Amino acid sequence: MACNTVLEALLDALGEDVVQFGERIAYRRNADWSGVPAAQPLAVLCPRTTQQVSQALAICHEYRQPVVVQGGLSGLAGAACTQEHDIALSLERMNVIEEIDEVSGTMTVQAGAILQTVQERAAAIGMMFPLDLGARGSCTIGGNLGSNAGGNRVIKYGMVREQVLDLEAVLADGRIIGGLRKMVKNNTGFDLKNLLIGSEGTLGIITRAVLRLRPQPAAVATACCGLADYDSVTALLCTAQQRLASGVSAFEVMWPGYYNYVLANISGLKPPLPAQHNYYVLLESMGTEPERQQADFERLLQECLETGVIEDAAVATTQRDALDFWSVRDAPAEFPVLMPKLIAFDVSFSIRDIGQAAQDCAAGLGARWPGCTVLVYGHLGDGNLHLIVDVPGAAAETVEQVEALVYGLVNEYNGSVSAEHGIGLKKRNVLGLTRSASDLDAMRAIKLALDPHDILNRGKVLPDRY
Amino acid sequence: MACNTVLEALLDALGEDVVQFGERIAYRRNADWSGVPAAQPLAVLCPRTTQQVSQALAICHEYRQPVVVQGGLSGLAGAACTQEHDIALSLERMNVIEEIDEVSGTMTVQAGAILQTVQERAAAIGMMFPLDLGARGSCTIGGNLGSNAGGNRVIKYGMVREQVLDLEAVLADGRIIGGLRKMVKNNTGFDLKNLLIGSEGTLGIITRAVLRLRPQPAAVATACCGLADYDSVTALLCTAQQRLASGVSAFEVMWPGYYNYVLANISGLKPPLPAQHNYYVLLESMGTEPERQQADFERLLQECLETGVIEDAAVATTQRDALDFWSVRDAPAEFPVLMPKLIAFDVSFSIRDIGQAAQDCAAGLGARWPGCTVLVYGHLGDGNLHLIVDVPGAAAETVEQVEALVYGLVNEYNGSVSAEHGIGLKKRNVLGLTRSASDLDAMRAIKLALDPHDILNRGKVLPDRY
Repeated sequence: MACNTVLEALLDALGEDVVQFGERIAYRRNADWSGVPAAQPLAVLCPRTTQQVSQALAICHEYRQPVVVQGGLSGLAGAACTQEHDIALSLERMNVIEEIDEVSGTMTVQAGAILQTVQERAAAIGMMFPLDLGARGSCTIGGNLGSNAGGNRVIKYGMVREQVLDLEAVLADGRIIGGLRKMVKNNTGFDLKNLLIGSEGTLGIITRAVLRLRPQPAAVATACCGLADYDSVTALLCTAQQRLASGVSAFEVMWPGYYNYVLANISGLKPPLPAQHNYYVLLESMGTEPERQQADFERLLQECLETGVIEDAAVATTQRDALDFWSVRDAPAEFPVLMPKLIAFDVSFSIRDIGQAAQDCAAGLGARWPGCTVLVYGHLGDGNLHLIVDVPGAAAETVEQVEALVYGLVNEYNGSVSAEHGIGLKKRNVLGLTRSASDLDAMRAIKLALDPHDILNRGKVLPDRY
Repeated sequence: MACNTVLEALLDALGEDVVQFGERIAYRRNADWSGVPAAQPLAVLCPRTTQQVSQALAICHEYRQPVVVQGGLSGLAGAACTQEHDIALSLERMNVIEEIDEVSGTMTVQAGAILQTVQERAAAIGMMFPLDLGARGSCTIGGNLGSNAGGNRVIKYGMVREQVLDLEAVLADGRIIGGLRKMVKNNTGFDLKNLLIGSEGTLGIITRAVLRLRPQPAAVATACCGLADYDSVTALLCTAQQRLASGVSAFEVMWPGYYNYVLANISGLKPPLPAQHNYYVLLESMGTEPERQQADFERLLQECLETGVIEDAAVATTQRDALDFWSVRDAPAEFPVLMPKLIAFDVSFSIRDIGQAAQDCAAGLGARWPGCTVLVYGHLGDGNLHLIVDVPGAAAETVEQVEALVYGLVNEYNGSVSAEHGIGLKKRNVLGLTRSASDLDAMRAIKLALDPHDILNRGKVLPDRY
């Protein structure tokens, strides 16, 4: 049958089961957690197989139809938001865990699998999938890979790209690339896997992946430390990494403005330490030997107290304590309620520069907008800083001015405008602060080579030429 | 000045200091360790700066002049061999260690820096650059990155791509991409870094890199274990990873044919164990606590003896012992002398499949060429197997037949034709066994997008279309 429109062609090939439009999609969210406004898509495709994804993209490629791939819609940069005239392709039905290979330490999953499900299935066989982040209950492996998700355990296990051995993806014209090989070592030509990971749906749609599992830690030690200055913070990091047999699995730093704010404004939080320090570090080490892990950890902290690296420390003696400490670090989930107009940053610097860079940001913002709130915290072991800025009674243009100030400092310190959230729609106009014009040209050339009609996540990631 | 030839243009721009030809290059090697024959290049360029690399490539791009980048010439796939009409570009003068940042744990180096120099400079400040391989004294960081080098410590630290935070590279037309940022987290657009790493000089010339340093282990425990069957080998791997606080830093498996051959044919080797086992495992754990490391390690082995996972174990009590154990594993350096016509393989499989795959290879080769020597060993924790095949009195076509048999089994087991050595010239015709036609098409599209005149390492990695 000859089809006049892309929707007819899609319906003809995939049927009403897969191709949903009109009233059937009216209820759907098409925005993510970024705050970027989203338009109603022309249709939502819900394929059940890689083959159906391939058929769908081949048709959209032929009709020059833009397609936005969607996972759990928990992104913070707007990469999954549909714009006018887009078709959405949701991987929600491709959520099967296809195989667990205990000997090889791998799990083969479809891209729509929920992160928490993957974590639980790994734990059930005494192993661990180390990626962890707040959206675990709704985010999908495909979204995690598309955005190269980070989270709290990067310091020990790396970004999600280091947790994936192979993947299968569909290119814009429907061709299927990659595979499901289970090897750590596979030096056979260009690394298309890592090119797809972090490309936020602009180069291909990831459909399946082989995840790498790790041994489940048998013991976790957690402490909250108070420190006097930034040199002490980096000294603690260095000492803990050198001395703890199992290394450091989290090194979360909270500046006093943050610490005092969350304890004053969020009910139910217990202060691990009195509010009298210049830096607070949530230190965690995941180990293999329950009986010795805690003693070693406490001995290290005792030595750091004696040498003056830390001023004080509260060590978790129960799992409840550890959860209480983490509640203080995870408090930002409440920020949007407390500060509806907050401006949030996810940036990175070298570890050496973070202390000064954070100070410059806070000082610059305070001088320009007296009375503004600036909360600073982050995954310091990875150079990743989160800044929350709230300017009471701010005008609409204030957001841009605040961003200009912070991103200007990021540029000055040779940092990155996006540590772990990606670029999407929200940061494409500042991408050029971290990537050079030649980098952007190379990216555009690759995009054009793999998606000549620019149908995949059109208008995302790459800035317009100027 | 108008230049008639590419050499004139290069001389005009860069001078005789950089552009060397005629008698000045007659002494040079232009072949690597692969055995691939190399032609004398038209000229050898020895730039001193990234800017000079950029100028050189811009001119070669304009003149459609093929360029082969060279580092330490220790590659095993022929990627650095010059062919007829090539110009060689050597990074030997760009060997400076530009900066060590102890707080951030980074070392910024030029691509011509020798691996061993990097290792020693890291050790001098109590840190470690974990990449290690036999060619350490001559191979360069640029070559390590170009080929995504592996080596013995991948099981703990990952391939070299996981040891690099950022890099600078020159594209075919002279544009400089990338940078020297020191962050673990930097999700800003397509991952050009990982695309360049492992592309074997076909997409760009890596000129500088920011390497990630790790804490120097304070203690190393080493043992050689004898095991009865392959299930015991994977059980030992799993147990050691779960139980040893600092994890496993090497898990090298030697099949009995290998073990018996090296002890019988290479003088000076001491057998760690009597030659009565079906598998030998060189197990190593790098830890942080000298006083406890050895006791924990021995306790684990004692338990494995009691549960029957291992049949016997020799534990190194001195550094001399450990070196002796490693000498047995490092014996292949002598193989070319003992078997001048050996056929060597660097392949990978899932850990689950390796035992059966190795058995199938040995059985298939033995049936087809009775009396042939087949030696099997490898980095089993990474799924990486090395096979050495020697067919006495073999005809010239035997090499192809042996390769067809082994690569056929690699394909059958969904393995990889190159685990860590890369593709170069030597394996381009079997690349299609591990990568699909769509993968190869995508690679070609990327190559054309970034190097439209195909000047960079022409004819390497990608097979001709057929």
